[in-house]
Amino acid sequence: MNLIPWQDKPNNWKDILWRYSANPIIDRYAIPSSNSIFNSAVVEYKDGFAGVFRCDNKAVQMNIFAGFSKDGIHWDINHDPIQMKAGNTQMIDSDYKYDPRVVFIEDRYWITWCNGYHGPTIGIGYTFDFKEFFQCENAFLPFNRNGVLFPKKINGKYAMLSRPSDNGHTPFGDIYISYSPDMKYWGEHRCVMKATNFEDSAWQCTKVGAGPIPILTNDGWLMLYHGVINTCNGFRYAMGAAILDEHQPDIVKYRTQPYLLGPSELYEQIGDVPNVVFPCAALHDSEEDKLAIYYGAADTVVALVFGRLSEVIQFTKENSL
Amino acid sequence: MNLIPWQDKPNNWKDILWRYSANPIIDRYAIPSSNSIFNSAVVEYKDGFAGVFRCDNKAVQMNIFAGFSKDGIHWDINHDPIQMKAGNTQMIDSDYKYDPRVVFIEDRYWITWCNGYHGPTIGIGYTFDFKEFFQCENAFLPFNRNGVLFPKKINGKYAMLSRPSDNGHTPFGDIYISYSPDMKYWGEHRCVMKATNFEDSAWQCTKVGAGPIPILTNDGWLMLYHGVINTCNGFRYAMGAAILDEHQPDIVKYRTQPYLLGPSELYEQIGDVPNVVFPCAALHDSEEDKLAIYYGAADTVVALVFGRLSEVIQFTKENSL
Amino acid sequence: MNLIPWQDKPNNWKDILWRYSANPIIDRYAIPSSNSIFNSAVVEYKDGFAGVFRCDNKAVQMNIFAGFSKDGIHWDINHDPIQMKAGNTQMIDSDYKYDPRVVFIEDRYWITWCNGYHGPTIGIGYTFDFKEFFQCENAFLPFNRNGVLFPKKINGKYAMLSRPSDNGHTPFGDIYISYSPDMKYWGEHRCVMKATNFEDSAWQCTKVGAGPIPILTNDGWLMLYHGVINTCNGFRYAMGAAILDEHQPDIVKYRTQPYLLGPSELYEQIGDVPNVVFPCAALHDSEEDKLAIYYGAADTVVALVFGRLSEVIQFTKENSL
Amino acid sequence: MNLIPWQDKPNNWKDILWRYSANPIIDRYAIPSSNSIFNSAVVEYKDGFAGVFRCDNKAVQMNIFAGFSKDGIHWDINHDPIQMKAGNTQMIDSDYKYDPRVVFIEDRYWITWCNGYHGPTIGIGYTFDFKEFFQCENAFLPFNRNGVLFPKKINGKYAMLSRPSDNGHTPFGDIYISYSPDMKYWGEHRCVMKATNFEDSAWQCTKVGAGPIPILTNDGWLMLYHGVINTCNGFRYAMGAAILDEHQPDIVKYRTQPYLLGPSELYEQIGDVPNVVFPCAALHDSEEDKLAIYYGAADTVVALVFGRLSEVIQFTKENSL
Amino acid sequence: MNLIPWQDKPNNWKDILWRYSANPIIDRYAIPSSNSIFNSAVVEYKDGFAGVFRCDNKAVQMNIFAGFSKDGIHWDINHDPIQMKAGNTQMIDSDYKYDPRVVFIEDRYWITWCNGYHGPTIGIGYTFDFKEFFQCENAFLPFNRNGVLFPKKINGKYAMLSRPSDNGHTPFGDIYISYSPDMKYWGEHRCVMKATNFEDSAWQCTKVGAGPIPILTNDGWLMLYHGVINTCNGFRYAMGAAILDEHQPDIVKYRTQPYLLGPSELYEQIGDVPNVVFPCAALHDSEEDKLAIYYGAADTVVALVFGRLSEVIQFTKENSL
Amino acid sequence: MNLIPWQDKPNNWKDILWRYSANPIIDRYAIPSSNSIFNSAVVEYKDGFAGVFRCDNKAVQMNIFAGFSKDGIHWDINHDPIQMKAGNTQMIDSDYKYDPRVVFIEDRYWITWCNGYHGPTIGIGYTFDFKEFFQCENAFLPFNRNGVLFPKKINGKYAMLSRPSDNGHTPFGDIYISYSPDMKYWGEHRCVMKATNFEDSAWQCTKVGAGPIPILTNDGWLMLYHGVINTCNGFRYAMGAAILDEHQPDIVKYRTQPYLLGPSELYEQIGDVPNVVFPCAALHDSEEDKLAIYYGAADTVVALVFGRLSEVIQFTKENSL
Repeated sequence: MNLIPWQDKPNNWKDILWRYSANPIIDRYAIPSSNSIFNSAVVEYKDGFAGVFRCDNKAVQMNIFAGFSKDGIHWDINHDPIQMKAGNTQMIDSDYKYDPRVVFIEDRYWITWCNGYHGPTIGIGYTFDFKEFFQCENAFLPFNRNGVLFPKKINGKYAMLSRPSDNGHTPFGDIYISYSPDMKYWGEHRCVMKATNFEDSAWQCTKVGAGPIPILTNDGWLMLYHGVINTCNGFRYAMGAAILDEHQPDIVKYRTQPYLLGPSELYEQIGDVPNVVFPCAALHDSEEDKLAIYYGAADTVVALVFGRLSEVIQFTKENSL
Repeated sequence: MNLIPWQDKPNNWKDILWRYSANPIIDRYAIPSSNSIFNSAVVEYKDGFAGVFRCDNKAVQMNIFAGFSKDGIHWDINHDPIQMKAGNTQMIDSDYKYDPRVVFIEDRYWITWCNGYHGPTIGIGYTFDFKEFFQCENAFLPFNRNGVLFPKKINGKYAMLSRPSDNGHTPFGDIYISYSPDMKYWGEHRCVMKATNFEDSAWQCTKVGAGPIPILTNDGWLMLYHGVINTCNGFRYAMGAAILDEHQPDIVKYRTQPYLLGPSELYEQIGDVPNVVFPCAALHDSEEDKLAIYYGAADTVVALVFGRLSEVIQFTKENSL
Repeated sequence: MNLIPWQDKPNNWKDILWRYSANPIIDRYAIPSSNSIFNSAVVEYKDGFAGVFRCDNKAVQMNIFAGFSKDGIHWDINHDPIQMKAGNTQMIDSDYKYDPRVVFIEDRYWITWCNGYHGPTIGIGYTFDFKEFFQCENAFLPFNRNGVLFPKKINGKYAMLSRPSDNGHTPFGDIYISYSPDMKYWGEHRCVMKATNFEDSAWQCTKVGAGPIPILTNDGWLMLYHGVINTCNGFRYAMGAAILDEHQPDIVKYRTQPYLLGPSELYEQIGDVPNVVFPCAALHDSEEDKLAIYYGAADTVVALVFGRLSEVIQFTKENSL
Repeated sequence: MNLIPWQDKPNNWKDILWRYSANPIIDRYAIPSSNSIFNSAVVEYKDGFAGVFRCDNKAVQMNIFAGFSKDGIHWDINHDPIQMKAGNTQMIDSDYKYDPRVVFIEDRYWITWCNGYHGPTIGIGYTFDFKEFFQCENAFLPFNRNGVLFPKKINGKYAMLSRPSDNGHTPFGDIYISYSPDMKYWGEHRCVMKATNFEDSAWQCTKVGAGPIPILTNDGWLMLYHGVINTCNGFRYAMGAAILDEHQPDIVKYRTQPYLLGPSELYEQIGDVPNVVFPCAALHDSEEDKLAIYYGAADTVVALVFGRLSEVIQFTKENSL
Repeated sequence: MNLIPWQDKPNNWKDILWRYSANPIIDRYAIPSSNSIFNSAVVEYKDGFAGVFRCDNKAVQMNIFAGFSKDGIHWDINHDPIQMKAGNTQMIDSDYKYDPRVVFIEDRYWITWCNGYHGPTIGIGYTFDFKEFFQCENAFLPFNRNGVLFPKKINGKYAMLSRPSDNGHTPFGDIYISYSPDMKYWGEHRCVMKATNFEDSAWQCTKVGAGPIPILTNDGWLMLYHGVINTCNGFRYAMGAAILDEHQPDIVKYRTQPYLLGPSELYEQIGDVPNVVFPCAALHDSEEDKLAIYYGAADTVVALVFGRLSEVIQFTKENSL
Repeated sequence: MNLIPWQDKPNNWKDILWRYSANPIIDRYAIPSSNSIFNSAVVEYKDGFAGVFRCDNKAVQMNIFAGFSKDGIHWDINHDPIQMKAGNTQMIDSDYKYDPRVVFIEDRYWITWCNGYHGPTIGIGYTFDFKEFFQCENAFLPFNRNGVLFPKKINGKYAMLSRPSDNGHTPFGDIYISYSPDMKYWGEHRCVMKATNFEDSAWQCTKVGAGPIPILTNDGWLMLYHGVINTCNGFRYAMGAAILDEHQPDIVKYRTQPYLLGPSELYEQIGDVPNVVFPCAALHDSEEDKLAIYYGAADTVVALVFGRLSEVIQFTKENSL
């Protein structure tokens, strides 16, 4: 178990989560070609951390890049995007790659991302070492975004959350789950969680999408997610939490009516897409009761927010819709 | 081999297809509850024909109904919709069912339709006798329409065409193919055929979707399909043909630049949705070189159009985009 | 009691309502200036009938015209629109007038219509003789359409149904009720009946609006109304029925899931706005159990449909949502 | 002077214009490749008539075709579209050609049409014999439609009406005039006539566009034009008339508040685009006081309507906005 | 007369209004549950001030909260929203409450707000002590926003400004006035002031809505209001002033062509809805010639701006449209 | 040759362009009436610089103002807008003027701007002394924006770039070139450069428009331009460069795939329209290899960015699409 990034809660802080004091941790121009680095994924790797980063270059082409860190805060991101080799399939086109997630299952690190194949859909790949990457068949038909794998098989099958979309700025979006015996063919699709009614919880009334890899807790799967409201000046993205049934994760046991984190710092409110908090990864240390969530801010930079795992779960149960 | 419906080509007729002289063959009020009967599927069954019909009732709820015919023209349609039993899955919701297709594969009749599960997706079911029906897992996540199975396995797997959509009147639409080892999990999704550029063939420049079950010919799979243009007064649906590679059907060998059949008869130009020709089924007799295509007209009635299979193929090859 | 227009139900007719055999009863060019005559109101008057007719002229300006008939079928419509005098108010602008309803309450005939005052709202006027007309204050702020008065006071107050709108082709619309002590000030607004879910009854899932003056029956107020579905080729208007509580008419006791009359005749399917059936008036003879409904067809002509009052009520109760 | 097509006004006919009794004069399938023939231009030529016809083929590609007629009613249309040679310019792309107008000026027949050059703009060409055609520089930048030349120079310059547009179904549209010393460079653009307010004349409140070549009369230029209203079921096109100042034609002297001809016959109300009357050419015989107007009906066929030139002018003056 | 909040005009300040130097006066997180506090109303109360505050909680549910202050700048806002008792009516649903205004008339404090009853409409309530609140009938049918009462009866009747809307982000909006004899039934609706033409005053060309309670001056009613322009990046809200006739307030005597206050400070330009200045209350001291305006900034916080009443009136008269 | 504004490149700066350290150089309130000053043009004039500035006043009316500077950084802008006299035409309406460009050709300074004549089009004027200005005929029909003249005749004719538009926030836009023998009549329109595919270069995939006057270099015309991406929170404007053929400038020889300058400073990210970098003028000194580009930031202020002309050209050639 590595030491995950951490700062203690500031004095007199009343919210469940508190931001890293030196946010953002990754600047938009952190590598020479980048216009922005955000919505990225990290995992524990060897004695430190590895990550897959969304870096849009200055042509605003979207791609994913590997990176490494000793402490989870200071990152060396490769200057060239990940080159994929053929995995369980012939190689198919990929017009762009963005919003990666990473998870270790059994023997390897699986990566999912939004893959450009005649529009956005869910790309799947894997690596053993973050140097050599293999691309598999897309999980679904277009149009889809925010494909997030569970960190272990459920009822003997791989399980993936995703959010069916359209081919544009999609003004709708619900979270579904699908299963696969082999990471190649997918089925048994179930609706997990829909956008809310405006009256019940407006911050998540336009669309919702899964964020980091779900975390198994005593209460079930903790799923951090983003929710969106469509204001008269555009979309605003915030973060919430839900707890899914361990064995039948299309059952939502709890779901936060309030958001956990909303855009209120300058680096969240200003950038290429203002007012965006978009979590894509989380590290946790159950023994230490620590949770560190990585999120893209304003579609421009990467930031970090901390919390106590137990408090997040308790808050989710006590403030459930 | 049953005798399929047929009329010889009228004298001096210059087009490839000619309509049945007593069209429409099924009236909108053919069963007591119906508001409209259209976009329906028929197959040879025993010494006659069976069919699965889209009947919207007078509440304009969409459902599918079994029907039987001796000659393929005069039909007895059940007054009650098909009741499904659980097939390869627990039973899932189905808010509505429409636009069925039917095909015999190996030992049973498979039915696909647009299934209402949090929006339109592709429902799958089967029957042995058109009396008892079993519903399987939906093939895909929402949103999807026009799921059409191939009449035999390809490279050892079931193959299905479909058209990913959004949750409304979808102003886009391309044809994809997906494969399944077991009719439960689907993958290996490939784009087959997209809507055209306006300049090249405007009748199919907004969206395209597969129609009847593809017919295997010496040139490959004959896929009849609908194409849509978005006029200033709404969508206009016409019918074209494409020939797909037998073994790798995501390869389009030929595709008609002109349409084969466009709305020009009163029952095609007027109805609940004017200017719609929407093919969902075809009977053919290769020895007699006969082709009979069933199509929904104006989202209101069912009509029939005839042609010579060889001429359709030749026309498709000679007038290809 | 005058003899209302009538034809007996045709043999073998299975629906609840049957059309007048010589429909439409008023042609689009029935008066010299008219482009179309539709969505009009009639009442019993002296030994015959009087009416207020929507005639759009050939500049497609909308106005209302008085007319008279001996039999309710053959009409003499004035060639000049109604000129209003000031009623309970100074005279206000009226950019256009359309979709009138007429009802006798206590001592006079009240007319409501869609009145152009910085957009559509509900105009109110009255007459004693269909020669001299008085215009009152608009009932509501813009934007509103389909204001329909009850034929007597309820709990001591005038009651009006209406359908709040926007300033265009309004893709939404629910029926509300409002009360007034004096036909000048209105309040106690309550929602009566909303558009349905698509799955439950799609023909009325986009908007609904009250039609003729409600008819008091033993079961409550019979409210005929129009419902709209938004197809990919535009709006389609059909007619349904609801029964409202006699004393608290914001309570819907029954409401037809199927429509009672949908566009299926040529004069309903073709015209300035295809696929429109829009009822604005009804005559009934409770003793004879007769009901004659006037409706605009395709925003172009006036047509007539008959039914048995008792059957309509029974149908509404037995086919309620 | 040739004899222009003519039928006397039917008895008891009250409108200014009356349709040819055998309308439509050109069927949608009049040439082998055609899907529709409409919005076309004719002129007197030799001892008969020549024309340039919009024929959309069955791929719904738009192009213009030459045709000839003895009587102006029965037409021989070439089966191949017009092939252009380079006129006052190198040859430029033309993705499509539609809605032609034709006019004789000085020594040749000039043709204008909607030309596909990165979107619709105004193409110009000329011919001396309707066999050999020369294409000139486009008059304007995209996006533009309905370019109509005056039949003689005004103040020493060529003059053209046009209607600036966008790259889609353009929900706006006003008529402008531009001048050129040489048919190559254009300037001095002036707004002539805008769409009306809804309240004043709703049939022309969405957009207006010039129709046939203007006719010089004692009162000025008679400009027939189309006007459009956007109903909830799409655009509806009707025809009006305006009289422009002879020497400064951006001055509108009169303009009909009512339309002269609206869609009310089946071939105008039904077709590829329902409810369209779209005039593109007119023949007149001032001595005989005859006017014959060719118009596209429902974007599908060509029809003919007659009137007395003097009556049209008088009507325009007496019913002016 | 209490001392209203005040700072003198800064040296060399050239605009009519100047901001409070410690803006914003109320932070978004000022109470534990709040996501944002803005668009709120204050009045003089006892020896200090009372207010009704819009606090959106962290579920982004909108509600109104009472608060108290000694100096009008530092506020104690209740942690629980106002609970209403039934006033002049049975209790009706209220899905949400936002954008309150408060005014003392005769014997009590009246509150109006945007009330969620099947969409936004104008809620009315009253209190004597800001502890016990009574809810009355909604003033109008949906959809409406920005209901603002006059501080005394006009011609013996209560008078209210409002802005009819649609059920979304309403891209239009004009100010109307309505009258009531009893705060229950409303009528005599008149249009007061519309959005401007883009060319005349673009900052208020999309919509306008009344702000604080109008202030009676020697020149008539001073009505501060917000105006909106729709930029390519969303709505931008600024503040203007108009002077209405004292006795017939639908007559606009003067109206500022320039805005008085536009978003240009960081807390106005950044927040949940960037670029919003939205006034909802004003305190004034006529003897001291002081005006203090409370406005919501960026839909996130409350700010304060000062001016001389006489200068505002003079400016309005001298810079009138 | 005057000394153009300049700062040397900061140490360790890696991008091609670097901002002036005291940006913005012109504040939004720099003249008494202004709401914002941005998108403005400067040229060398006498021993200093002259400019034409877009100042929107506090009514948000758009107009252009002359200004003068010794050093190109500190500007005296007239407090009154430019008054035009009639140039090569009678005077025509101009509802508004914005986004000017200025260029010296032969004997005078030509100014082009977006001119409000029934919507935006390209206005042309000239001056000899920046005191007396003459307005010419508009170059094109509406709707057009971003008209930019070349600094000398090409093939004997004036040449102008422009971007045809619609009458709103135009979600499309390509760059065209047109020619004129006399600055009055324009023709020979050619498409120069279109918006890119999303996959190739997303920052310029929605629309592109020419910026400063093109600069003739050994490689051809250096055209700086703006490109736009449509994010879910609105348009984002950045700057790129292209090199056009010297003699046939509709040929694009090179075009930057990455942007040269994107909004990333606070004054570019916040303002009346956030996230806008919009270049309208450039000064260059070929001998000193200096380039100073003036750009509007956030539609609110004017800023300055520097670069080496040779490096910009080299970068454009090496990073071409």
